[in-house]
Amino acid sequence: MLSNIRNTRIEWYQCDPAGIIFYPRYFEIFDTSTTMLIERALGMTKLEYLKVYDFTGHPVVETRGRFRLPTRFGDELAIETALVECGRSSFKIEHRLTKAGVLAAEGFETRVWVVRREDDPKRIRSQPIPPEVLARFNQARI
Amino acid sequence: MLSNIRNTRIEWYQCDPAGIIFYPRYFEIFDTSTTMLIERALGMTKLEYLKVYDFTGHPVVETRGRFRLPTRFGDELAIETALVECGRSSFKIEHRLTKAGVLAAEGFETRVWVVRREDDPKRIRSQPIPPEVLARFNQARI
Amino acid sequence: MLSNIRNTRIEWYQCDPAGIIFYPRYFEIFDTSTTMLIERALGMTKLEYLKVYDFTGHPVVETRGRFRLPTRFGDELAIETALVECGRSSFKIEHRLTKAGVLAAEGFETRVWVVRREDDPKRIRSQPIPPEVLARFNQARI
Amino acid sequence: MLSNIRNTRIEWYQCDPAGIIFYPRYFEIFDTSTTMLIERALGMTKLEYLKVYDFTGHPVVETRGRFRLPTRFGDELAIETALVECGRSSFKIEHRLTKAGVLAAEGFETRVWVVRREDDPKRIRSQPIPPEVLARFNQARI
Repeated sequence: MLSNIRNTRIEWYQCDPAGIIFYPRYFEIFDTSTTMLIERALGMTKLEYLKVYDFTGHPVVETRGRFRLPTRFGDELAIETALVECGRSSFKIEHRLTKAGVLAAEGFETRVWVVRREDDPKRIRSQPIPPEVLARFNQARI
Repeated sequence: MLSNIRNTRIEWYQCDPAGIIFYPRYFEIFDTSTTMLIERALGMTKLEYLKVYDFTGHPVVETRGRFRLPTRFGDELAIETALVECGRSSFKIEHRLTKAGVLAAEGFETRVWVVRREDDPKRIRSQPIPPEVLARFNQARI
Repeated sequence: MLSNIRNTRIEWYQCDPAGIIFYPRYFEIFDTSTTMLIERALGMTKLEYLKVYDFTGHPVVETRGRFRLPTRFGDELAIETALVECGRSSFKIEHRLTKAGVLAAEGFETRVWVVRREDDPKRIRSQPIPPEVLARFNQARI
Repeated sequence: MLSNIRNTRIEWYQCDPAGIIFYPRYFEIFDTSTTMLIERALGMTKLEYLKVYDFTGHPVVETRGRFRLPTRFGDELAIETALVECGRSSFKIEHRLTKAGVLAAEGFETRVWVVRREDDPKRIRSQPIPPEVLARFNQARI
């Protein structure tokens, strides 16, 4: 299974008056990790793959987060991200965030492949993932 | 059961290049709604209740979100927030976000009552919710 | 001169470990106020005016902020926003943010009317403000 | 003069519906660069230097930004940060952000050394920068 590991440091701007990360910032971190995983699976940047496959994005329709250890500004974290499931027009991603080897947070997300609607370009609708992408995603899952 | 309903408008700064809300912004909205619910239950602002009950905050340890309809800048939303469960040192909150009466997003969160650790003020630990707060929370759940 | 006054409350998610607002959040507040001012001048929502005048946005090319009083979560603020200058393809906006009548922060911004480039839709370029909009902007400045 | 150069990539979560970075995100980037510069000048992390010098932070009281080139998700940027002036209780920082060697954005900020007020710990006041820090800051400016 293709997984992506990257490191990040929690910064002041991500923390709240309790001195710890404000939890929605974890979802920003997870979103970037998902992008990096897909970029790696497809061999293109997000800007490129949105254009090549002519779609609007892969928004999250369901997510879950478990925050086990508080993290603070200055903490060095590792985020491991994996594609765990892939359907016709949706896929699932999991993230494990560790601090000095200890699990600090987990994220689970379901994303949908979407395009703009022909009848109303301001709205979006799901669409089957292109076969070529599906092949690479499934390959990545092994 | 005490619930809090407030209205908000999705703004440009909350949206991403797909033109829809970037989903971690929903958790910012939910966090503010939780604050407002607790302020209402305790009859104090957050700044006041953190001081009166001498604690550091009520961070989220687990959360789940379901995003059913994309929302865009300019969309007027209503958020209904309810305290659904209350334990010794944790409690659960649910949020229902509607657009023109239609369910657009849902949020579920478990929060823990925390204080700074005596041995290391940079770290936090959970602590029982004060009886007075518990009484008001339980009253709010009826 | 048309000006827009709105009220907002500083929330936990906008504050940092010093317990005060993290200053980039002021620019998010200012951006929303600018949108509201233009919506009022044009009698349309931003989604509508982007479509009607077929342009990409009015990004900030220069900004300045002065933060005189720290503000904290729970603080009720008023933001007064005015269009102070209008050129061929750019315009200037000023914001005054007060807390209990006392000036807490000021923002000054220069914005440019932009469209996507025909030769490369991923890039943008400035374009003259439509005469109809200019007329309303100038009227708003009186 | 001590300066700090770091690289960052603009991510999806930092961009708005126009497909370019939402400008307040630049200030988040600048804030992190300032932290890194001070960490380097003092040889400590921010968490450590706040504790060692027993102060609350160095909030921005005045800032200015010029955004010359729009940047988009996927853009690789370099940020060069320098301490350019140092007073009794305040100091000035400048940031130059380049994309492929071309100046994309500039930031100028004045920061104040602050502590919590004895009479009201929820409020802050400026305080002289400790001589030891001042010495290192002045050394860094050469």
